[in-house]
Amino acid sequence: MSEIPLGGNVVCQVGLIVENIEHTVQKYCDLFGVAMPPIQVTLAHDVTETTYKGAPSDATAKLAFFDFGQVQIELIEPDHLPSVWRDYLDEHGESVHHIAFIVKNTGETIEYLAGHGIGVLQQGLYSDRSGMYTYMDSVPALGVMLELLENFPK
Amino acid sequence: MSEIPLGGNVVCQVGLIVENIEHTVQKYCDLFGVAMPPIQVTLAHDVTETTYKGAPSDATAKLAFFDFGQVQIELIEPDHLPSVWRDYLDEHGESVHHIAFIVKNTGETIEYLAGHGIGVLQQGLYSDRSGMYTYMDSVPALGVMLELLENFPK
Repeated sequence: MSEIPLGGNVVCQVGLIVENIEHTVQKYCDLFGVAMPPIQVTLAHDVTETTYKGAPSDATAKLAFFDFGQVQIELIEPDHLPSVWRDYLDEHGESVHHIAFIVKNTGETIEYLAGHGIGVLQQGLYSDRSGMYTYMDSVPALGVMLELLENFPK
Repeated sequence: MSEIPLGGNVVCQVGLIVENIEHTVQKYCDLFGVAMPPIQVTLAHDVTETTYKGAPSDATAKLAFFDFGQVQIELIEPDHLPSVWRDYLDEHGESVHHIAFIVKNTGETIEYLAGHGIGVLQQGLYSDRSGMYTYMDSVPALGVMLELLENFPK
């Protein structure tokens, strides 16, 4: 079998959707005894080229990251435009949203997952355009959403 | 500040609740190209001393584990008795259930979390009695359930 294009099966991130990121970040800092991370706001379609269910989207989110060993905990507070984040919050409330893998070639991984019946839900560039993310429609098969992260060569 | 008793803030496991573990294990094996893991069935209260919301419980679950780097993916299919697993499946459907940390002293960590308003939901010994797990009522504060894993000295 050729190599499975899922980043060596190493989970690098667990993403959670929250209602109020400032509130939840403070709880994490208090509980885990870590410094307050910056809260970033993602940019709109003109920069990030975000698509949701195949159509351009101006949905944004506030993000904060904690490094917990190999795994980064990502907190995500969506805005009110339709997105993979907003829809998840509306359907599930605050909860774990995805697990992420670093991939070398997003197109190749998407093709591989398509062969297993798993399509793309949302895709976009990082706000600094240094890489791209892709959320996959994997909940029906795997019980969890997969995110593919590709960091572009510098 | 004294050391935070949460295993150096290293996430060691992500647990998912599924309806049919044989079905989902097969999907993981196919997609990630890994060997079929054994499916274990946890034992009842006489062995595991399981308590749920403070009362003895005979709830069990089928479990399977995949090692994905530092992080183990745990699939859990609950039986139909009330448990932290069954209630989660009934409320949320198939989804991510918890993130786990290895702790040195469960009692100390429970005391620490109690000081942050987070109580115990379910606790029990591993079926081989080599350690214990404790699920914490952390969703309101953190958006995710914490599991404490303590492996007893051999």
